[in-house]
Amino acid sequence: MPRRYAFGRAEDATHPDSMRAALSEFIATFIFVFAGEGSLLALGKIYYKDTGTTPSELVVVALAHAFSLFVAVSVSMNISGGHVNPAVTMGTLLGGRISVLRAVFYWVAQLLGAVVAALLLRLVTNNMRPVGFYVTAGVGEWQGLLFEIIMTFTLVYTVFATAIDPKRGSLGTIAPLAIGFIVGANILVGGPFDGACMNPARAFGPALVGWRWRNHWIYWVGPLLGGGLAGLVYEYMVIPTEVPHHTHQPLAPEDY
Amino acid sequence: MPRRYAFGRAEDATHPDSMRAALSEFIATFIFVFAGEGSLLALGKIYYKDTGTTPSELVVVALAHAFSLFVAVSVSMNISGGHVNPAVTMGTLLGGRISVLRAVFYWVAQLLGAVVAALLLRLVTNNMRPVGFYVTAGVGEWQGLLFEIIMTFTLVYTVFATAIDPKRGSLGTIAPLAIGFIVGANILVGGPFDGACMNPARAFGPALVGWRWRNHWIYWVGPLLGGGLAGLVYEYMVIPTEVPHHTHQPLAPEDY
Amino acid sequence: MPRRYAFGRAEDATHPDSMRAALSEFIATFIFVFAGEGSLLALGKIYYKDTGTTPSELVVVALAHAFSLFVAVSVSMNISGGHVNPAVTMGTLLGGRISVLRAVFYWVAQLLGAVVAALLLRLVTNNMRPVGFYVTAGVGEWQGLLFEIIMTFTLVYTVFATAIDPKRGSLGTIAPLAIGFIVGANILVGGPFDGACMNPARAFGPALVGWRWRNHWIYWVGPLLGGGLAGLVYEYMVIPTEVPHHTHQPLAPEDY
Amino acid sequence: MPRRYAFGRAEDATHPDSMRAALSEFIATFIFVFAGEGSLLALGKIYYKDTGTTPSELVVVALAHAFSLFVAVSVSMNISGGHVNPAVTMGTLLGGRISVLRAVFYWVAQLLGAVVAALLLRLVTNNMRPVGFYVTAGVGEWQGLLFEIIMTFTLVYTVFATAIDPKRGSLGTIAPLAIGFIVGANILVGGPFDGACMNPARAFGPALVGWRWRNHWIYWVGPLLGGGLAGLVYEYMVIPTEVPHHTHQPLAPEDY
Repeated sequence: MPRRYAFGRAEDATHPDSMRAALSEFIATFIFVFAGEGSLLALGKIYYKDTGTTPSELVVVALAHAFSLFVAVSVSMNISGGHVNPAVTMGTLLGGRISVLRAVFYWVAQLLGAVVAALLLRLVTNNMRPVGFYVTAGVGEWQGLLFEIIMTFTLVYTVFATAIDPKRGSLGTIAPLAIGFIVGANILVGGPFDGACMNPARAFGPALVGWRWRNHWIYWVGPLLGGGLAGLVYEYMVIPTEVPHHTHQPLAPEDY
Repeated sequence: MPRRYAFGRAEDATHPDSMRAALSEFIATFIFVFAGEGSLLALGKIYYKDTGTTPSELVVVALAHAFSLFVAVSVSMNISGGHVNPAVTMGTLLGGRISVLRAVFYWVAQLLGAVVAALLLRLVTNNMRPVGFYVTAGVGEWQGLLFEIIMTFTLVYTVFATAIDPKRGSLGTIAPLAIGFIVGANILVGGPFDGACMNPARAFGPALVGWRWRNHWIYWVGPLLGGGLAGLVYEYMVIPTEVPHHTHQPLAPEDY
Repeated sequence: MPRRYAFGRAEDATHPDSMRAALSEFIATFIFVFAGEGSLLALGKIYYKDTGTTPSELVVVALAHAFSLFVAVSVSMNISGGHVNPAVTMGTLLGGRISVLRAVFYWVAQLLGAVVAALLLRLVTNNMRPVGFYVTAGVGEWQGLLFEIIMTFTLVYTVFATAIDPKRGSLGTIAPLAIGFIVGANILVGGPFDGACMNPARAFGPALVGWRWRNHWIYWVGPLLGGGLAGLVYEYMVIPTEVPHHTHQPLAPEDY
Repeated sequence: MPRRYAFGRAEDATHPDSMRAALSEFIATFIFVFAGEGSLLALGKIYYKDTGTTPSELVVVALAHAFSLFVAVSVSMNISGGHVNPAVTMGTLLGGRISVLRAVFYWVAQLLGAVVAALLLRLVTNNMRPVGFYVTAGVGEWQGLLFEIIMTFTLVYTVFATAIDPKRGSLGTIAPLAIGFIVGANILVGGPFDGACMNPARAFGPALVGWRWRNHWIYWVGPLLGGGLAGLVYEYMVIPTEVPHHTHQPLAPEDY
């Protein structure tokens, strides 16, 4: 085996590709620690019992969202791009990937889908009133807003990295799963605090049919801000990689 | 970076592709909100305690169905198309993808598989009587029927979008997972209300071996109606897309 | 749109491909109903409380096995074929895909891996005695044996359909997931009855380190019989398909 | 059908490929039994109640980590290689796949991502103190250290087998899922004993923000040792396979 180089190329420290790789590691580790450590705090929050939630119920809610969003993205991926969320549409709009007119079409369709789902749920459950989203006791509105911004940022960043990035490669195959599961992970964190919505349509349908508007603005402003920010960051800071990074190729002699 | 267009092409609003994309967003968002909000209502239903179910048990049942259907579709996908469900066969029959004779073969095989499974379960569990499906207290038969129609529609729509659509592309790789997980998600919603069957064979085997026929017609009529409807909608409204929609390509100059 | 044919080709009823498709539907539906209905019976069994298990614990055990077997198959798939189980090796041996000598190598390696895992577990858990497998109260040994035969049959059938079948196509990509998840699904069924082992090495390591041999023979005879049977059935009844079945292609004019 | 050979080629017993296949089976079976049997011991540990954990909470924690790490690896895979963990970076460094300088970049980015995640969690949860990792009562520090070494070994071995090995093939598509799920499986085992960290950044962020340093060294030394060891073992013992092993091809005549 040839000798491996010990301290890297001199230009490694300032190469834009190294910077993007470090940014990518930063955000990825953020996503993991936010959800991992956050799930422990969420369990602590449940102990306060002000949410009326048990850990098992949190699992039910997280899996229902993760599984169904995975499927929803799958069945629309090839036709509309698999947004299923006005915040994703906002991110792709700000990233310059769809026109304003198409975005408006998508927003209307998403809101309609959510309203019809909530109406049918009320019908088939013998008139149970939809629950929707609100900030639980002990959490401020601005904290809920920040929660939504952060969680939606990670969601839309995931959409860009796995489903939109022209260099996504075989990642595109599991993109719907990643998109569904980041929502599931975030619900395991944010559920006991503010419901972990990340999606204005998801909030609007049940709010309208159940006529519950407490804290409702949070679930529009937070996701649209977080999703738009993720679209801008990914499109203008991450995608411009020109030189592919052969991180997993054995080092060639000319790398020494 | 070139200037992005601000309000889309003039024809965007009436282009059939835009319509199909909006329909796709509508249905996908419906699927997500139906399962997501529905899981909260399901937990509310459990609190009434008339189902004798706890959230943990709901997770057990949903995962057992999601995992095993994922596998069942996988092991039959390349040989029979991976139906595993008379309602899926009905959808593909109405969509014109299989002959009546083949459909009858499939139906017989599916019912036989379900009956043998129920018989062997009775044998190995020391004669436990299969449970099957029924509508729980507080839910009417017509509500259960509508539940089955809606949930089976989303299931068979998923089958068409991921496993049958000629433009499914790499989605085909995860099709069995999407099919298994939409059933898991729907059980997390409909389980406490009507059991969330979506499959006449799944209902028939245990009903026969356990000799329980209360509400049984619901689990034939609902899935066959919902599955047939999904086949017709997908085959005649969604598939005819001729112009591929480059939703995730950067906008080319000629798009402006 | 051309007229679709109404009753299929005359030869459809006796065509070997139709027979194989029906067999495939039969087995796939069996897998689904066995696990789906079985999970309800398993919950009923838990109520008897003779297993000391709760539904949440069943989820822990099923996910731990499903996730880790998925990974174990993934990391060995390209090197050894991803057996991880003497019953899988037996199936591939009877199917004529490996030599006796290689099978013996695999068996020794699998048993060693299981023993070392059990030893290290005893060490790091401050000497907790491994639990292993046994038949719970109210279930006979022969019922446990039959349980193991059936469940291992579905497992090894899944291995053949997704990882070995030369026509597996893109299914090969998700083969490790299907293999892990059928074990997870079967544990949700058989766990409260006989532990749902399906793997002699999985039983042997903890039995040796924990020195527990009650019912131990069941976990050798059952899996080896079920796994061997699945290998023979798949290799000699399912694989010989010569004419690919275009179940999901639109019917061409010459099909009418 | 031609006669199958009965006892393999004479050189099978000493062929390096057979050795590697047996090693692969050994490690894969180890992974499976360690997690499977370990989850039972973990449930036994929970009964001691010294961890304040219930099985449902263990599921919440395991799924939050499995789902979010799957996503974190997905979104960084094509840009930085998807490390998300200083122990993975250590393994790839010792395996000669990245330079020391790049490794330092990654380590800094990973620690920063973890610290920012912990800080934001403290902010949005209204100042809840992060929990971090520690060894529970009845488990010694050296046992916790050994736990971390073993679990991180299986994690980094998985990274190499699915994401780095040049012969990974279609396994690369599901690599992020395998990496996320081995962490989920290991948490179901090690969670009640030492928290199952496997990642110094995951431990450091919450420790700093929550100012909890009890047992902290374990979560640096254990993962770096285990991850480094896995990199060396995989790179120098498993990868050098030159002759592809056609384990799943039917035996050709010249094999007899």
